[in-house]
Amino acid sequence: MTAAARVMARADELAAFTEAPGRITRPLGTASLDGAMELVRKWMQDAGLVTRSDALGNLAGRAAGGPGTLLLGSHLDSVADAGRYDGVLGVLIALECVQELPLSLEVVAFADEDGLRFRSSYLGSRAFLGVLDEADWALRDDAGVTLREAIAGDVEPLVPADLRAYFEVHIEQGPVLEAAGVPLGVVTAIAGQSHATLYFEGVAGHAGTTPMGLRHDALAAAAEFVLAAEQIARDEPGLVATVGRIGVPGGAVNVIPGRVEATLDVRHADDAVCARAIQALRMIGEALRRRRGVRVRWANESGHGATPLTLAPALAELLPGAPLLPSGAGHDAAILAGVTDAAMLFVRCAGGISHHPDEAVAEEDVAAAIEAARAFVRVVAEKACTTS
Amino acid sequence: MTAAARVMARADELAAFTEAPGRITRPLGTASLDGAMELVRKWMQDAGLVTRSDALGNLAGRAAGGPGTLLLGSHLDSVADAGRYDGVLGVLIALECVQELPLSLEVVAFADEDGLRFRSSYLGSRAFLGVLDEADWALRDDAGVTLREAIAGDVEPLVPADLRAYFEVHIEQGPVLEAAGVPLGVVTAIAGQSHATLYFEGVAGHAGTTPMGLRHDALAAAAEFVLAAEQIARDEPGLVATVGRIGVPGGAVNVIPGRVEATLDVRHADDAVCARAIQALRMIGEALRRRRGVRVRWANESGHGATPLTLAPALAELLPGAPLLPSGAGHDAAILAGVTDAAMLFVRCAGGISHHPDEAVAEEDVAAAIEAARAFVRVVAEKACTTS
Repeated sequence: MTAAARVMARADELAAFTEAPGRITRPLGTASLDGAMELVRKWMQDAGLVTRSDALGNLAGRAAGGPGTLLLGSHLDSVADAGRYDGVLGVLIALECVQELPLSLEVVAFADEDGLRFRSSYLGSRAFLGVLDEADWALRDDAGVTLREAIAGDVEPLVPADLRAYFEVHIEQGPVLEAAGVPLGVVTAIAGQSHATLYFEGVAGHAGTTPMGLRHDALAAAAEFVLAAEQIARDEPGLVATVGRIGVPGGAVNVIPGRVEATLDVRHADDAVCARAIQALRMIGEALRRRRGVRVRWANESGHGATPLTLAPALAELLPGAPLLPSGAGHDAAILAGVTDAAMLFVRCAGGISHHPDEAVAEEDVAAAIEAARAFVRVVAEKACTTS
Repeated sequence: MTAAARVMARADELAAFTEAPGRITRPLGTASLDGAMELVRKWMQDAGLVTRSDALGNLAGRAAGGPGTLLLGSHLDSVADAGRYDGVLGVLIALECVQELPLSLEVVAFADEDGLRFRSSYLGSRAFLGVLDEADWALRDDAGVTLREAIAGDVEPLVPADLRAYFEVHIEQGPVLEAAGVPLGVVTAIAGQSHATLYFEGVAGHAGTTPMGLRHDALAAAAEFVLAAEQIARDEPGLVATVGRIGVPGGAVNVIPGRVEATLDVRHADDAVCARAIQALRMIGEALRRRRGVRVRWANESGHGATPLTLAPALAELLPGAPLLPSGAGHDAAILAGVTDAAMLFVRCAGGISHHPDEAVAEEDVAAAIEAARAFVRVVAEKACTTS
């Protein structure tokens, strides 16, 4: 059996661990995630790794070598009704990279990246680094159970003291590689994100009796905003802007919308570009107030800056034909890159689809990813030893 | 006490009849509507009218005169949390028009125009004319009670056999008269309406990983549609087009909308204009499919044609300064105009607000409306007698 065939078969095996029969739904702190971790622990042991885990469910397997540790992996938790490769593929390919090296190698399987249960971000990798805080422990799931209550015992950080680099393979979760006709891509950075809720406040009115010239239609204003966000993103390479939700609270077919709620998501690998786009959209909001008498209020603004991946050039050198692209989605690499050199390799996925049962990768693309990952591990290991 | 002061005071008295204390909510088949009808019956009797009513709750008061009947009135039911003038004002001003005439005069108070309980249209005036059908009787309220079950006994049509004309005074429910700075307006027609539900079908995707050029964003397409509807209506005098509801089923802040649902409401006094606007919007939908790969599906299309009010010129002659305007909202006059000559007089209302506790009219505007209504009743009575 080839390494790629083994990865495909193991992804199928792990898909059986779920809280929802017939679907893949594997959140933090559940029997299904525990089961998946135990199976991966067995595979780690078969590969000669010495395993350890923490109370959260994170699992690490170590092949002790020289000083310095190269960490490889991804996560095993999933969203609701997920696909079988998001996270899983990175852990399984990491297992295929175990080889004789001049330093130590660890494979990690994080217990929470998609954050389904607590609507959280990166609980797994942050616990691994020992940086969970009180706000994290106070998070509640839909049943009202806090993270503190859900986890038995203390969570000791598993991170090795001599960590030198982190490397993660992941499905692209986007259509860029497919559109380019190539199997692999080099991630230059985890894009920064800005999220906001927008309230468009106009004046409600009777749809039959209010002439067009006397309206302050909050939805018409919101429509202008949606198209402006799209245009600004189209005009700036690498920028994406999305209005994902919209609604007219209390609206009716025969009432001019007086109030519209919408969400905004803006991402770019360069924080300055993100900030410029937000600034332009705020000016659009001002213009809507002046021109339409519809006020645009920004609320719940949140987000994080971009995280450059320092080992991207080294990975790109190995893959001369591979596109360099930022990751618009968040990944464990965004957390690990805060404490060590990091790289990510994207694998083409069918239709760019992820977080969905239709998520698919081709076995030959997986083979290419394994080959690239093995070579990259050797390059990083050599470089780490010569510079240490 | 002047007639206008009496109308204002009576509107306040009727506001006390409600199913919801502190608000005005007076649907069909309730104690509050019965109470309002009984008080109006007493006022009719005080005015010398001979009253009769039907099982639905419609109330008519007749001053027998020569052959031929001139019918004046409006409705006493309300929407939820209503104002105190919608419908009520037309009944109360009709009472002030009782006078010596060469024909018979009837004041009518319809029991269901706003259709709150059964989400119906014009049950009152249609029962008055004897044209309720099986579908009407099978309507169910929120408790599952059918109209048939809610109404004790048969509903005999109250319409007089010698009906010659119908005249209704109503608040404008729009801002045109206020914007023009005049108290009264002559309604030329009840505008036709087209309603539809629109489904915009694009492709959902990850908001972070799908470049702008590879998207088929259903909301961006819907936004174009909203603005196109607005522009088409702005460019055509008297046309109004409204998208009152919109939503992204299952949408999330970080997901490109794959599907959007929205409603469309288009109205004009000329059916051909309405049809042309719908046709133009269908072409916009086609363009969105070609240009954005987002399909626009039209569903639940309904509506009715415009109803011209034949006595509008006679009313306009009496009120040389009054604007001529279509009614974008439906009124009992739309039903009565199907069987007889009809006219409607609009009274300016504050801010164009209706179906809301803030609904307000000025006493001096009511005085002007009473004067115009009394004069119009004499003109119509004389004309009816000379042409009969």
